[in-house]
Amino acid sequence: MRHLRLTVAYDGTNYAGFQVQPDCPTVQGQLQSALTALVGEPVKVIGASRTDAGVHARGQVVTFTTDSPIPVERLAPALNALLPADLACVGAAEVPADFHPQYAARRKRYLYRILNQELRCPFEGRFAWHLRPALDVAAMQEGLGHLVGRHDFAAFCAANGSAKTSTRTLYGGHVVRRGPLVETSVEGDGFLYMMVRIIVGTLVEVGQGRRAPGAVAEILAGRDRTRAGPTAPPQGLTLMHIEYDETST
Amino acid sequence: MRHLRLTVAYDGTNYAGFQVQPDCPTVQGQLQSALTALVGEPVKVIGASRTDAGVHARGQVVTFTTDSPIPVERLAPALNALLPADLACVGAAEVPADFHPQYAARRKRYLYRILNQELRCPFEGRFAWHLRPALDVAAMQEGLGHLVGRHDFAAFCAANGSAKTSTRTLYGGHVVRRGPLVETSVEGDGFLYMMVRIIVGTLVEVGQGRRAPGAVAEILAGRDRTRAGPTAPPQGLTLMHIEYDETST
Repeated sequence: MRHLRLTVAYDGTNYAGFQVQPDCPTVQGQLQSALTALVGEPVKVIGASRTDAGVHARGQVVTFTTDSPIPVERLAPALNALLPADLACVGAAEVPADFHPQYAARRKRYLYRILNQELRCPFEGRFAWHLRPALDVAAMQEGLGHLVGRHDFAAFCAANGSAKTSTRTLYGGHVVRRGPLVETSVEGDGFLYMMVRIIVGTLVEVGQGRRAPGAVAEILAGRDRTRAGPTAPPQGLTLMHIEYDETST
Repeated sequence: MRHLRLTVAYDGTNYAGFQVQPDCPTVQGQLQSALTALVGEPVKVIGASRTDAGVHARGQVVTFTTDSPIPVERLAPALNALLPADLACVGAAEVPADFHPQYAARRKRYLYRILNQELRCPFEGRFAWHLRPALDVAAMQEGLGHLVGRHDFAAFCAANGSAKTSTRTLYGGHVVRRGPLVETSVEGDGFLYMMVRIIVGTLVEVGQGRRAPGAVAEILAGRDRTRAGPTAPPQGLTLMHIEYDETST
C-alpha cells in the first residue's frame, strides 16, 4: 500500500465545507469521488483542516492510501482532469504510512480579506468581506499583537468546537492595507473552530473605533466568547499554507 | 431630462455578453432592469463596448436618460443594491445630452490573462486562459510591437464584424510575466470584433515558437483573417478602461 499526500486548492463558494455531508457538495466528497474513479477502488481521504462552508484554500493538505501504481508526478494532472473547475490538486508526494495531515501539521497560515471601500466589487464578492467605512489598520494591527504567543483562546472559539484544549500558539500576524483591501494574515500551531473569523470580527470592531486595541488583551484574558466580536463571514477566509516537519514527510 | 454616465464592472462568466438578447442573461439587460426599478420608468441603456459572452469588464461605460431627480452620488450604491453580485456600478456622472459612450470614446484598454503553468488553478479558471508549456514572453512582446501604430487590422477581425472600416490605431501594448500569469495589455482608439482575442491567439503561437515574431507583421500586411492565429477564449479578457476627452464629459 502507498500513502500519498496531496496539496489542494479550492474556491469554497459552492461547497458545504471540507467534510463529507449527506446530500451536500463537499471538498472531501469531490476528492474521494475523483480519486476513486482514478485508481479504480474506493478511496477515503483524510484532511488537515475542516474548512467551513464558503471558506477557500490554496494549501489544504489531504492524504489517502492506495494500491494504485500511478506515478506520483502524474497524480495532480490526472486528478485535475476529473475534478470540477473550482477544485484542483496543486501538488502530490509519497509519505510514510504513519503521516497524518492533521496531527503532523506544525504551522498553519490563514489569510482574511476585507474589501474596505464604499462600493462593492464583482470580482471580490466571493473572496472578501465588504465593509464600507474606512478601517484603522494600525489599531487592528495593535489589537492583533496582543494575541501573539501561547494563550488559552477560549474567547475566540465557537461554542460547538470539539478540541480538547483551547490553548494554541499564535506565532505571528499582521494587518495590512493593499489598495481597497485590508488583509489579515495569521500563523499558528493550530486554530480552534471559527477562531480566525472571530479574531477578525473582533479586530474589525477595533478598526471601526468601537473598541480600543487594548480591549483585545482583556477579551483574551476573559476566556469568554460572548465578550469577543462577531464571527466574520466565511468568504473572506483562505487557508494559505500548512507546514510540516521535513522528517515527517 | 438628465443624461447620466455610469462606469460598470462585471464578472462576465454567467452573461451571454453585454448586448440584450432574448431569453439570455446580459449585462445591458440587467442594468436596464435595475435602473427601471430604481427610477420607476422604462430605461434604455447605451454601452461603449459590446463585450462578448464570458468577457469581463472593470471600466465599461454606459449612458441612460431619465427624469429622476436621484442625486448622482447616490446612483451607484442604490443601483448596486438592485444588481446581482457579479455586476456593479463603480462610478456615475452627469454628462451633456449629446455624449455618446461609444462615439465619444478616445482610447480603450484591454487586458488578457493567460495562466501559464502545468496545473490549473481554481481561482483563475473564470479569469484566465490556461496554457501549460512555458511561453516566450519576449517573443510575444516583439510580435505585438509590429502591431503598434495606425493600420488596417482586417487580419485580426472576425468575419462577422460590422465596422465600416478596419483601420484602427494601436497606441501601445505590452506582454509581461507576473508569476504564473502572462498578461497582455493593449490600448487603442478602438478595437474590431474579436480583435484583441485574435491578436492574443496569434501572439500565443509566437510564444510557443510556432511562428517568428516577424510573422505578425506579415499577417498584418496580408489583411487576411485566415493567416492569423486562433481566437483566444473569452474568459481571459477584461475591458479595463475607456478614456474620454475632458470636454465631452
